[in-house]
Amino acid sequence: ARPRVGYYYSGKNGGQLFNEQMQKLTVKQFQSVPVVVNESASAYDAICIMFLEDVGTLFVVNKKSRLAGILSRKDLLRASMGKQDLESVPVSIIMTRMPNVTMCKPEDTIVEVANKLINKQIDGVPVVREIEEEGAIVHEVIGRLTKTNIAKAFVYMASDDLHT
Amino acid sequence: ARPRVGYYYSGKNGGQLFNEQMQKLTVKQFQSVPVVVNESASAYDAICIMFLEDVGTLFVVNKKSRLAGILSRKDLLRASMGKQDLESVPVSIIMTRMPNVTMCKPEDTIVEVANKLINKQIDGVPVVREIEEEGAIVHEVIGRLTKTNIAKAFVYMASDDLHT
Repeated sequence: ARPRVGYYYSGKNGGQLFNEQMQKLTVKQFQSVPVVVNESASAYDAICIMFLEDVGTLFVVNKKSRLAGILSRKDLLRASMGKQDLESVPVSIIMTRMPNVTMCKPEDTIVEVANKLINKQIDGVPVVREIEEEGAIVHEVIGRLTKTNIAKAFVYMASDDLHT
Repeated sequence: ARPRVGYYYSGKNGGQLFNEQMQKLTVKQFQSVPVVVNESASAYDAICIMFLEDVGTLFVVNKKSRLAGILSRKDLLRASMGKQDLESVPVSIIMTRMPNVTMCKPEDTIVEVANKLINKQIDGVPVVREIEEEGAIVHEVIGRLTKTNIAKAFVYMASDDLHT
C-alpha cells in the first residue's frame, strides 16, 4: 500500500508537506519485474527476448545469477549495425559491464533514481540487493526501475484522489 | 477537523494547491528540440542520425516539412534484424505513419502526455502545431516530449526550492 499525504500541524505549509511526500516515494513502490539474460546468450537471443518481453533494457547475469552487465536497445542497435553475425556474438561482448552499471536499491527514492537516469542518459537501472559471497560484494537483481516507472510516479503524485 | 495549512485561504489545503500546480505543468515548459528526418531518407541514415543526435525517437517529415510519421529505436532495431539492405529501405516503409502518430500540443499538460506515453507504451511524442493547408489539417513539428522530460518535471516538482 502506498502512503497517503497526511495533513497535521507541523509548522510546515501544505506545499512543503506534499513536497516531502514526493521526495519520500521509493523504488520499492514503483519498480517493475526485471528481465534477465544469461551472459552466454547471443546478441540475437537478447534482441528476441527484448521484443518478446517488450522491455528497453535487459540485465545480464552470470552463471550464479548475479548481475554481470546491462544491455540497452541502443547497445543492440549498435551491434546490429556491425559486420558480425549476431548469433555468434555473446552479449558479454556488447553489454555495459560491472562495475560500470548504474544500479539502485529498493529503499532508494524515486527522485534519486530520476536524477541518475537524467544525468547518465540511460533508460533504466536494475534494482539490486547486495550479497557478500566468497569475500566479494555481488548483486542479485530483484527489480527494474525505468523512466516509465518515473512517469507513473508523476501521474500518481498529480492524481486528485491522493489529496481529497 | 483538519487544520488549514495553505499559503492563503482558498478553501483548499496546501496539498490540493500543490497538486493543482503539478497538474498545470505544460509541455511548453519542459519540451526538447525535435530531431527530424526526411521521409526519403534510408533506415541506415536514420540510425546514424539517432546515434549522432543521441535521441530515441525521430520524427519523419514530408517534402513540405509536415509530420509524416515517427521512428523509434525499436522500429529501427526490428528493421535491422530483417534481411533487407538498410541503405535501400526508406524510413517511410518502417515508420509509424500518420494518422497513427500520437502527438501533443505545447499547451497540453505534462500529466496528459505522461498518461499517453504510459498507455501507448511509447518513449516520446512530437509537439505539433496544427496548420490548415489546401483544405487539410497538417502538422508542423515544433518540439519533442519524452519520458526524460517527464523525469525532469518530476525532479522539478520534488525540488525544495519550489516551496520555501
